[in-house]
Amino acid sequence: MRPGAFDLLERIRQQKPVIHHLTNWVTIYDCAQVVKTIGASPVMAHALEEVADMVQIASALVLNIGTLTIDFVEAMKIAAQGANKKGIPVILDVCGAGATGLRDRKCLELLSEARIDIIKGNTSEVARVSGESVRTKGVDATEVQGDLAALAEKLAKQRQATVVITGKEDIVTDGKKTFVVANGHGMMTSVVGTGCMAASIIGTFAAVERDLSLAAACALVCYGVAAEAAASKSSGPASFKQNLFDCLYHLDRATVDRMQRIAGLAGS
Amino acid sequence: MRPGAFDLLERIRQQKPVIHHLTNWVTIYDCAQVVKTIGASPVMAHALEEVADMVQIASALVLNIGTLTIDFVEAMKIAAQGANKKGIPVILDVCGAGATGLRDRKCLELLSEARIDIIKGNTSEVARVSGESVRTKGVDATEVQGDLAALAEKLAKQRQATVVITGKEDIVTDGKKTFVVANGHGMMTSVVGTGCMAASIIGTFAAVERDLSLAAACALVCYGVAAEAAASKSSGPASFKQNLFDCLYHLDRATVDRMQRIAGLAGS
Amino acid sequence: MRPGAFDLLERIRQQKPVIHHLTNWVTIYDCAQVVKTIGASPVMAHALEEVADMVQIASALVLNIGTLTIDFVEAMKIAAQGANKKGIPVILDVCGAGATGLRDRKCLELLSEARIDIIKGNTSEVARVSGESVRTKGVDATEVQGDLAALAEKLAKQRQATVVITGKEDIVTDGKKTFVVANGHGMMTSVVGTGCMAASIIGTFAAVERDLSLAAACALVCYGVAAEAAASKSSGPASFKQNLFDCLYHLDRATVDRMQRIAGLAGS
Repeated sequence: MRPGAFDLLERIRQQKPVIHHLTNWVTIYDCAQVVKTIGASPVMAHALEEVADMVQIASALVLNIGTLTIDFVEAMKIAAQGANKKGIPVILDVCGAGATGLRDRKCLELLSEARIDIIKGNTSEVARVSGESVRTKGVDATEVQGDLAALAEKLAKQRQATVVITGKEDIVTDGKKTFVVANGHGMMTSVVGTGCMAASIIGTFAAVERDLSLAAACALVCYGVAAEAAASKSSGPASFKQNLFDCLYHLDRATVDRMQRIAGLAGS
Repeated sequence: MRPGAFDLLERIRQQKPVIHHLTNWVTIYDCAQVVKTIGASPVMAHALEEVADMVQIASALVLNIGTLTIDFVEAMKIAAQGANKKGIPVILDVCGAGATGLRDRKCLELLSEARIDIIKGNTSEVARVSGESVRTKGVDATEVQGDLAALAEKLAKQRQATVVITGKEDIVTDGKKTFVVANGHGMMTSVVGTGCMAASIIGTFAAVERDLSLAAACALVCYGVAAEAAASKSSGPASFKQNLFDCLYHLDRATVDRMQRIAGLAGS
Repeated sequence: MRPGAFDLLERIRQQKPVIHHLTNWVTIYDCAQVVKTIGASPVMAHALEEVADMVQIASALVLNIGTLTIDFVEAMKIAAQGANKKGIPVILDVCGAGATGLRDRKCLELLSEARIDIIKGNTSEVARVSGESVRTKGVDATEVQGDLAALAEKLAKQRQATVVITGKEDIVTDGKKTFVVANGHGMMTSVVGTGCMAASIIGTFAAVERDLSLAAACALVCYGVAAEAAASKSSGPASFKQNLFDCLYHLDRATVDRMQRIAGLAGS
């Protein structure tokens, strides 16, 4: 039987995998803290001279181009190639893709010079990486969902990767099967770093489950359930963020089973 | 009629301007979060190769030399020149001016190689940038205030910029009119980053109002009112900081109108 | 009579020493905030061109290799040499020593090219720096303690430095006298940055007391007492962290005297 979201969280708490990050400087603390909060061990290291060594003690590699520089992306490539050799999953948060030419180029370089196992972004970021243009404003949510799933599936097949589009409903696909995760809370959009943390959590779940689309979907379920629980007792974005960490820390099977909203798309 | 502090906050919530930052690594998260909390959209990007592109999607540029390096200041210059061309306001937090020769030199370079629309610092920082020496210790607050306003007005005229001196009472001047904002709370001095966040908030208000001294004064009113509201329910600097964000998020017209303490200086 | 832990905290609150950091990018905010919370004044500055100037206004220098790069360590060396000349204490957090060859080499370079007054790390980090191999897994806590104290004392004599090993019980030694601090709380291991903050607090106490092993032990007492007080009212790692700051801010003599658990090792 397929493991559920909480089963994977339990594996993380037992195995305490090391998750190596080259992430952005804005949210680096929160990325580390969220990984620690769910029971794993974050390592942030970006020196060109040590990333190949550091990735050898890791069980997953999380890359995020949010505050990229040329040198930093070179270190990402070395780390990703090391992860590829070791056979651990690499997740790339294409943070800000579409905002500048540099970001677009560097995303494509990373995708072509290393194997990226999971590509994660919001709608417009993933659309940009896929080379397609998608109207992301003024489009009805239900309508978009179908288009986005198709977009994600196409990119997944093209890149032979799992693709995650985060949003009001998250889409996760490996090109063969597709999940839609409806957990989460609107308050997440008022907190800087919730997207970056999603990538870190997905990377951590991918460290303990070979089926990467399942791992990513389960990660988003746990994250979203904790966010819903946190929102119910918060009075603004800062207390929400604090409660989100505390709720993730205490997440239990009964809560996850009761609150999870995950579905396979029809035909998937 | 001149818009009030809450009117500008409402504009921010409606227009959701993008605020591009090249800020310091200590408080970068809080700068981003405070901009998001008041309803705008922060972007942090510093690569020499992309700052000119990124500033094109922004409505204001916030610079902060708190953890400067040579390369970082070069990126600031490119971003500021791009902002100048686009016609969006540039705010410079002269964080730590006076502490080292490097900081003094780099402040002056930034001021001479790009148009800085708002210069912001505490008493000794602004004094240093203005090239004057000011005794900032052991001087009675009331006495200092007059001197400081004169200092700020002189620098404003010299640099044709708006000058903001933060402190127990904040002084804002464009050299023609001068505001004194008495909002705020002593607990702010126990939280790292409250000065940096002030610059980010001022930048965000400047994105929606062409009268930059009015924008800066209104920004400091909203920030200070939220700080007072937060302090009344806090038990230390960390809970104060959390409450500050939550109070900023929920700030409403009645609260701002009731609590604001802003005055034009006599003769201004 | 030897000053107690709270006596040193009082000195900090009165003298407000400036503590210069070259620390890691993950926890830089928390390092600054914890220093400010106990009443001192943090300065974070790492540019090669200004560290020698900045350290001149400081009363202690805190180095942390958590996110080291080659250039960053070069700046650390310049800062440390400046601190040595000025005669202020230098504390090195050997964060991640043992994880990669780069970290081991750079720790040794720092130890040989400048005088490091306090070496601080967890068990395996300090063991690595001392050049010994220590089994740190599956060993009973009581058994380890004896070995660790011996390890610390040997390194202290070899490097003529104070050595701090943090853990369930913290060991502090200058090679002549050895303290064991039993304060602290298990929740600290669920919060990223508690180790880095310990180094910052130790550095701050070292700024006001020449007996560095006493300063470090007193620092860990105050930190640990605040952690215990915070844990008793927290519902997870994020609320714990907030309460930790608030409790540190309000720490008073009665609480420290009542809760402190510090001992000199037999024969020390």
